[in-house]
Amino acid sequence: MPSASTALVSLDLLGTLAFAINGAMTAVRTARLDIVGIVTLGMMTALGGGFIRDILLDDLPPATFLDGRYLAVAALGGLIAFVLGQRLEKLATPINVLDAAGLSLFAVTGTLKGLEWGLGATQAIILGGVTAVGGGTLRDVMVRQVPAVLHSGLYAVPALIAAGLTAAFDAGGLPLLPWTVVAAAVCFAVRLLGVRYDLHAPRPRDMKSRD
Amino acid sequence: MPSASTALVSLDLLGTLAFAINGAMTAVRTARLDIVGIVTLGMMTALGGGFIRDILLDDLPPATFLDGRYLAVAALGGLIAFVLGQRLEKLATPINVLDAAGLSLFAVTGTLKGLEWGLGATQAIILGGVTAVGGGTLRDVMVRQVPAVLHSGLYAVPALIAAGLTAAFDAGGLPLLPWTVVAAAVCFAVRLLGVRYDLHAPRPRDMKSRD
Amino acid sequence: MPSASTALVSLDLLGTLAFAINGAMTAVRTARLDIVGIVTLGMMTALGGGFIRDILLDDLPPATFLDGRYLAVAALGGLIAFVLGQRLEKLATPINVLDAAGLSLFAVTGTLKGLEWGLGATQAIILGGVTAVGGGTLRDVMVRQVPAVLHSGLYAVPALIAAGLTAAFDAGGLPLLPWTVVAAAVCFAVRLLGVRYDLHAPRPRDMKSRD
Repeated sequence: MPSASTALVSLDLLGTLAFAINGAMTAVRTARLDIVGIVTLGMMTALGGGFIRDILLDDLPPATFLDGRYLAVAALGGLIAFVLGQRLEKLATPINVLDAAGLSLFAVTGTLKGLEWGLGATQAIILGGVTAVGGGTLRDVMVRQVPAVLHSGLYAVPALIAAGLTAAFDAGGLPLLPWTVVAAAVCFAVRLLGVRYDLHAPRPRDMKSRD
Repeated sequence: MPSASTALVSLDLLGTLAFAINGAMTAVRTARLDIVGIVTLGMMTALGGGFIRDILLDDLPPATFLDGRYLAVAALGGLIAFVLGQRLEKLATPINVLDAAGLSLFAVTGTLKGLEWGLGATQAIILGGVTAVGGGTLRDVMVRQVPAVLHSGLYAVPALIAAGLTAAFDAGGLPLLPWTVVAAAVCFAVRLLGVRYDLHAPRPRDMKSRD
Repeated sequence: MPSASTALVSLDLLGTLAFAINGAMTAVRTARLDIVGIVTLGMMTALGGGFIRDILLDDLPPATFLDGRYLAVAALGGLIAFVLGQRLEKLATPINVLDAAGLSLFAVTGTLKGLEWGLGATQAIILGGVTAVGGGTLRDVMVRQVPAVLHSGLYAVPALIAAGLTAAFDAGGLPLLPWTVVAAAVCFAVRLLGVRYDLHAPRPRDMKSRD
């Protein structure tokens, strides 16, 4: 049976891979980038959230920068997308699924790292949310889209749900496994339902003038 | 009479509130964001400048991230804008006034924090300017506008004036109160005059070719 | 004969100047910014890569922020571009040449700083690349262009070549001078050939659907 720490690293590497493929596929789909641009955007998407997390925690240089496994997995994800991108005609569905996977896993691991470093529950939940949406936000800014965190049907919400569940399970002394997986699965499901049914949190009522 | 430190925190929280409402109103006005997007943009606008300041100072984790009051005030500002945004038909004027208020207060508090941490006057003034324009720059990048600091009639200039006055008052040994308020008020007035009369610093002369 | 350290600082200041003029010229060319916007964009371009490098290395506050020479050179570059910008009708060529110069110099100095701080070769090479492309990426995001690092004919590639050569020369125990200059010159030549002949790394093959 894997130790808690090994499980955490595995989830984190899985999120890194999902985001790297996702970011690189976005590069293939949005603009005719060359292989360097594709791998670069994949790595930024995969590593960006963790870098922001580690800056906020003052864990510098970022753990995912010093640990060669993260760099290798992020680069690998970019290369996979480069190869697959030539085959797949429609990338929208895998892009969304991988994004939801990265979002779920990073929300959990970001929150746990915050708690480990002694943050309060509120701060740890925010940190989990930032870790989850950070890489995708960087990706969207780089390809000049309004970041998904601002407008997309339930993007920050499922991340914050997963972060909140993780903090609650931790406060309740529940074992890291399988409860972190439950938290990630809830986030994953809510996110995909949000995309599928175009769900949104409440919006301001119609304004007459929107000049 | 409040101590200097209490006064500084009060000014800082006031700037945080002003920028949070401003950023959230920008979200309401620019794009039809839902409540999560609105509050998120408000919090990024409110906390972004201070985060950049604290990264540059190596005061990590950022003070405004650990201190629950800043998080609460930033979230509150976003909620206020969400509610008000449904009522107000024209948001341009309050957006500008709140932006000028945040700019003025953060220019002062950013400079003072730099001096407290032992920076030279030049560095402290730049830090004050960065604190003041950082959150709004993040806001503008997120909603895909050219940041106000680059093009807007007198945006960085009043911030640097307030920062310079603050450093000068500090060097002269003047009491923090009321002189920081004077510095902020000058910045506030110059900024609003700049908006009102569309003032600019000198521009390069007309070029024939602008390919 | 200058010491290695003096040589390194000289190369770094030269790169700062090149990027400051480049960023400020971009501001003149892209948008009718006033002098404050021009100098600001120049300073962000010049100092951004080094700031990101120093955040990743945990060398905070950033060395280039504390050292007045960098601030002065960056501001000077912005002012030079403001003055020249009124004279030059076509800025595309000097913009590209200065960008290539900054890219080359920062790739070398960023890699060397990473090695000095004890990073492994892979991390030092990535750090050199990030230092080289960081300021230009910030510049492109600020003026709402897709960052050159993602799409431009050989932008990250020459930076990584220079970084790799620097790490190899260092591992081989070769003297810092003249070998860092060789590494920078190779990067400079590859970048300008890339621009001249619109060279790209391999791209994904044509996809039928690019919705």
